Amino acid sequence: MTRTLLSIIATVLTFVTTACATPPSSSNTEPPTMNHQRPRQLGFTFGTLPAGPLNAITDVAGVTVGHTTLIEGDAIRTGVTAILPHQGNLYREKTPAAVFVGNGYGKLAGSTQVQELGTLETPVILTNTLSVAAGIEGAIRYSLGHPDNQGLRSINALVGETNDSYLNDIRALAVRPQHVIDAITSAADGPVAEGSVGAGTGTTSFGYKGGIGTASRTLPAERGGYTLGVLVQTNFGGDLTISGLPVGRALKEPPKTTDDGSCMIVIATDAPLSPRNLKRLAARAMLGLAPTGSYISNGSGDYAIAFSTAYRIRESGLHEEPVALLANRAMSPLFQASVEATEEAVINALFAATTITGRDGNTRHAIPVDRVLDIARHHRVID
Amino acid sequence: MTRTLLSIIATVLTFVTTACATPPSSSNTEPPTMNHQRPRQLGFTFGTLPAGPLNAITDVAGVTVGHTTLIEGDAIRTGVTAILPHQGNLYREKTPAAVFVGNGYGKLAGSTQVQELGTLETPVILTNTLSVAAGIEGAIRYSLGHPDNQGLRSINALVGETNDSYLNDIRALAVRPQHVIDAITSAADGPVAEGSVGAGTGTTSFGYKGGIGTASRTLPAERGGYTLGVLVQTNFGGDLTISGLPVGRALKEPPKTTDDGSCMIVIATDAPLSPRNLKRLAARAMLGLAPTGSYISNGSGDYAIAFSTAYRIRESGLHEEPVALLANRAMSPLFQASVEATEEAVINALFAATTITGRDGNTRHAIPVDRVLDIARHHRVID
Amino acid sequence: MTRTLLSIIATVLTFVTTACATPPSSSNTEPPTMNHQRPRQLGFTFGTLPAGPLNAITDVAGVTVGHTTLIEGDAIRTGVTAILPHQGNLYREKTPAAVFVGNGYGKLAGSTQVQELGTLETPVILTNTLSVAAGIEGAIRYSLGHPDNQGLRSINALVGETNDSYLNDIRALAVRPQHVIDAITSAADGPVAEGSVGAGTGTTSFGYKGGIGTASRTLPAERGGYTLGVLVQTNFGGDLTISGLPVGRALKEPPKTTDDGSCMIVIATDAPLSPRNLKRLAARAMLGLAPTGSYISNGSGDYAIAFSTAYRIRESGLHEEPVALLANRAMSPLFQASVEATEEAVINALFAATTITGRDGNTRHAIPVDRVLDIARHHRVID
Amino acid sequence: MTRTLLSIIATVLTFVTTACATPPSSSNTEPPTMNHQRPRQLGFTFGTLPAGPLNAITDVAGVTVGHTTLIEGDAIRTGVTAILPHQGNLYREKTPAAVFVGNGYGKLAGSTQVQELGTLETPVILTNTLSVAAGIEGAIRYSLGHPDNQGLRSINALVGETNDSYLNDIRALAVRPQHVIDAITSAADGPVAEGSVGAGTGTTSFGYKGGIGTASRTLPAERGGYTLGVLVQTNFGGDLTISGLPVGRALKEPPKTTDDGSCMIVIATDAPLSPRNLKRLAARAMLGLAPTGSYISNGSGDYAIAFSTAYRIRESGLHEEPVALLANRAMSPLFQASVEATEEAVINALFAATTITGRDGNTRHAIPVDRVLDIARHHRVID
Repeated sequence: MTRTLLSIIATVLTFVTTACATPPSSSNTEPPTMNHQRPRQLGFTFGTLPAGPLNAITDVAGVTVGHTTLIEGDAIRTGVTAILPHQGNLYREKTPAAVFVGNGYGKLAGSTQVQELGTLETPVILTNTLSVAAGIEGAIRYSLGHPDNQGLRSINALVGETNDSYLNDIRALAVRPQHVIDAITSAADGPVAEGSVGAGTGTTSFGYKGGIGTASRTLPAERGGYTLGVLVQTNFGGDLTISGLPVGRALKEPPKTTDDGSCMIVIATDAPLSPRNLKRLAARAMLGLAPTGSYISNGSGDYAIAFSTAYRIRESGLHEEPVALLANRAMSPLFQASVEATEEAVINALFAATTITGRDGNTRHAIPVDRVLDIARHHRVID
Repeated sequence: MTRTLLSIIATVLTFVTTACATPPSSSNTEPPTMNHQRPRQLGFTFGTLPAGPLNAITDVAGVTVGHTTLIEGDAIRTGVTAILPHQGNLYREKTPAAVFVGNGYGKLAGSTQVQELGTLETPVILTNTLSVAAGIEGAIRYSLGHPDNQGLRSINALVGETNDSYLNDIRALAVRPQHVIDAITSAADGPVAEGSVGAGTGTTSFGYKGGIGTASRTLPAERGGYTLGVLVQTNFGGDLTISGLPVGRALKEPPKTTDDGSCMIVIATDAPLSPRNLKRLAARAMLGLAPTGSYISNGSGDYAIAFSTAYRIRESGLHEEPVALLANRAMSPLFQASVEATEEAVINALFAATTITGRDGNTRHAIPVDRVLDIARHHRVID
Repeated sequence: MTRTLLSIIATVLTFVTTACATPPSSSNTEPPTMNHQRPRQLGFTFGTLPAGPLNAITDVAGVTVGHTTLIEGDAIRTGVTAILPHQGNLYREKTPAAVFVGNGYGKLAGSTQVQELGTLETPVILTNTLSVAAGIEGAIRYSLGHPDNQGLRSINALVGETNDSYLNDIRALAVRPQHVIDAITSAADGPVAEGSVGAGTGTTSFGYKGGIGTASRTLPAERGGYTLGVLVQTNFGGDLTISGLPVGRALKEPPKTTDDGSCMIVIATDAPLSPRNLKRLAARAMLGLAPTGSYISNGSGDYAIAFSTAYRIRESGLHEEPVALLANRAMSPLFQASVEATEEAVINALFAATTITGRDGNTRHAIPVDRVLDIARHHRVID
Repeated sequence: MTRTLLSIIATVLTFVTTACATPPSSSNTEPPTMNHQRPRQLGFTFGTLPAGPLNAITDVAGVTVGHTTLIEGDAIRTGVTAILPHQGNLYREKTPAAVFVGNGYGKLAGSTQVQELGTLETPVILTNTLSVAAGIEGAIRYSLGHPDNQGLRSINALVGETNDSYLNDIRALAVRPQHVIDAITSAADGPVAEGSVGAGTGTTSFGYKGGIGTASRTLPAERGGYTLGVLVQTNFGGDLTISGLPVGRALKEPPKTTDDGSCMIVIATDAPLSPRNLKRLAARAMLGLAPTGSYISNGSGDYAIAFSTAYRIRESGLHEEPVALLANRAMSPLFQASVEATEEAVINALFAATTITGRDGNTRHAIPVDRVLDIARHHRVID
């Protein structure tokens, strides 16, 4: 009874949209903000391809993102992020997709069917490690509830996670299926809230507060003019490096604990890629983690999920609709985009994340941006 | 003794509480039975290696199996089966394990971590397609609840499924986490209930009632003297073949509908295998489906999970304890055992399964054993 | 017509030049023959789908097969078999393809590029274990020599093998690149020589003489009307089973030695399959080995290579030509065809192979067909 | 005839040891040198773990490296590099090993058996794309020729390549099996010649002359005190970055052509790793390419081969010898070492490589080290 009541309260407290209206109660827990300057605005560069208008996964037309942020009492600091590849019936009009397992120390559910059939049929759900079940059940209930899906009796939910248990009382299993449905139904295009929101509410990155980050790249017209967007849930560590600068070593903080953790990476593109080339694209995202200082430690469950919005797979007839797939040899600029956008998304999450205090009074501080800027100026990386 | 007794009581209680407050209304739904004659007793042979004493996965010492059978009202015909590799703390003393994806049209959760780390840290849970979330949450809650796991904040549940929606109102999500915990806590050694029980309550195989089946093989002393056991959840089709006999074609029934469906296969052995060789062993299980008439249709999510009880992986120190692993070249008889026991387990499920009527009055009939025997006599396969 | 004639002449010349300057001395080495009755003609059945007109891989239009048979002195009993997916420039017009590794105890070269890019750009070459280098060099020299390939500086040869060292002095590395070129240039459509020819000259299967076998299946019009053909190089063992009959146990011969060996399987189809679905198709071929009695022993390097002749991948422009790929859900009958044709091709090889004596006087005898027929009659499998 | 003669001359000209005694004839082709300062000596850093005494793969005890450098006439600029994991009979005492395919656009032979069995049984051979056949045949002939291997009839050669055809007349297939045997038999411990030698004689990296590079890392005693060494054959491109510096963009040269090419990476360690963990280690090497500016373009065949010298697999008895394998959780510092040493080895190759002119007068220039130092000073990365 009490739990159900608490759960209802939690839902009410949930950030129904991607913006935070009510500040969390804990005085040391700052509200997520979109008012900060993103690294690119501060002068940092990440590769050579241009970013899209929003420098976000939502630069890929049709893609929407929704967050449910759960900040309750002293110890619940977690949430859900949902990424929708299109606005139609995701089950009836499947999305070509692939998963690349960089390091399978993680609980990603739904991957084997995506690999086998090459299709995604639900939103991509991100949450915490012990809430994958809630993620699946939420995605299934959402799908069963669609008015056109009344005969639906099988559906594969793709649900990833990272472990936010330093700040979050993860054993409480605070995320419930309705939170997942809320994240899905609140998904929107436009700018994406970054930092300590949604599935990034309680995560840690390089010893600082991590969270959700996003970035995008566009290709020149002669390479197809495509857009590629990345969204990451950062919860991993290493020897923090920003635009080639050894920031972690220069800052001499925070005290080194562990490099474990995880990173979930979601890649969207409007290029017409086969699932095979989507998997290759997903593999490249791991290369985007390296320049931030990660070596993908044993405990880092790093996965990349890639999908294409360029066409859909419908269940009728013997054949799929003919598609002029991008050729292998035209993949290189998209590979570059995948690496660059992943690197930038990780740093974007770090710069956006606000200090959070949670379970047992544990605190993860926001990275000291001013000191990072000093380091960058010293090395003549920014003016 | 006491444990077995307690287990039996638990099984009875589980069945009563979860299923039989109201007995199944449909007169056409027979209770699961262990009084039938198994195919081997009827004279059928499946390969050349000898079976273990129980011809069951529980012939592998330490392995236990528990079922929760859900038969409620007219439309709930489903359940849970849990397989425990040992009786210690499964998280603290991990089991070497591997997963082979025969055809990934299925929702198996937890596979990527098993593949990456080579370890299993929960019971293996089998249930229906839309109840994987309940399976995960049940396995997690069970693990969190263990008195030695109070600091546990990450655990990987391995949960497989097949789709029982012909007989079961799968959209009702009738399986809840407690049903999973019940299956785990009721797990026992000794004979394993086969047929329309646990995760096999509502499944279909070759157009007849399928379900849970099990079998085992033992190796001669000079090949190591090891035991290998298999448990299957059969929900697939094809051109039914028994001990080489084209039974499906001879019976000319049931009316052919689809070959889709799935088969979950769990393999236990006391041979000291590396995760790499466990994966090779799991791959062989697919060869055991072929002689029953399966060609692994597009819609058949066929997975094999293999684990070894010969040693455990504990989390302390830089090194694992030294193990004299079975050499590659000594694997062949285990491969043979994997194929033979899988084939026999599938047929065992078919002979054990009792007729079930469920959702919308749909009925799956038990295979007509007498007619199968006639066919076998005609072809001089049995006397 | 002319091409076929030329091909026949080429085959004859190849055989003469490479093998028969000196006729095989051993009186116990019979010439390969196509005059035998194939198992299907004798009344055996393998599944339910109809075979194509030739019951051969060459039922897939455009596919050709060439053999170089090396029988020299007392100890050289080996050869090369080449399968060409089409008659154009294989490098310029690549063939969609995939490889499935059933058991990687083998030396297949070229697989990683086929997996990555989804394309085949040379003939498929089969030979003996220590002659893979000759296979690669032959395929490369053939490709470099094509008049349109003068600028060619990179090419991926796909070369498989089995170990014929019981009959063949494999350490002599008797196969040279020119033998490979000869097999390629002699490739022809029409009936395919089976048994102790080409790469099957020295192989062993179930203790009898194995070799090259082929079979095909056609789909009903409403399933697409496609053709699928299989060619195998059999060199493996187990508990020989033919159409469900335990022939090995009934014959009580030959004396059991080892189940090791290997099987190379090549699958061609005119169905428009993506490389992803070609890989799934290739995986099914392993299921075709099981009903013959194989459990894929540790030492059996079993690989399946699948390609589609329905479209080609050309290197120009950003995009491939649009193709209406066969949908996942339409794959099942092709999966069935893959299983059935593989099983039949293995048995076809066994019935076609002639007794060969080779290295150190070792002999592999042809299977005693009459006794097999007796067994089949006893069990009322044939009249 | 003429070719054989030339071949003999070539062999004579071959650098029999790892040092170059006779300068090549072409005036614009500088001799490989070990007199240059390596990047680390110039002040560059690559991660935080200490290098071994030689900063080379030969810091792993027992590992030896041999080069055959082929510089003949105006157009042959190629060679062979052999890496031996130990000095015993590599076939009889197999080395635990694994292969990770970063991007399978390459012709690596032998990978499927290494993956399946977890063992390496020949030296690792590196050469050019069209000489993989020579690599295999050389490794086989070397193995057959070992006095203890007279009964050997099956062996799996592991041969990788990159495409040196810009400088080398690759179509001439100048590498012959004897060159491979020469590289194997000349293998030595101690310092490893880097740059334009062996399999790196004709390769290109970031538009400059690439080649062979090597580096190593050692772990602190409390992490096991292990050594890990890497050897690379660099032939790839991207946006050249050195220790975080955007060198490629700063140099504004050489004129951008393509990012295609390849990188072969060989990793040795004395840590007792299972093949499963060796594969994970190999996967990390790809992360070492990223900080150099690679995004692994479509045409870059990037593979990592990892082996452990800590134990050997012998073919006797049912079991392997017991080994206390390194635990998963102890892998992280080795992962870090793999990333750091790969990055440094790539840059080492670049700094060591000397300008080479070859086919059609094509020239690849050595990187202008002085200008790189200027850039590094400007950014206060070195003093």
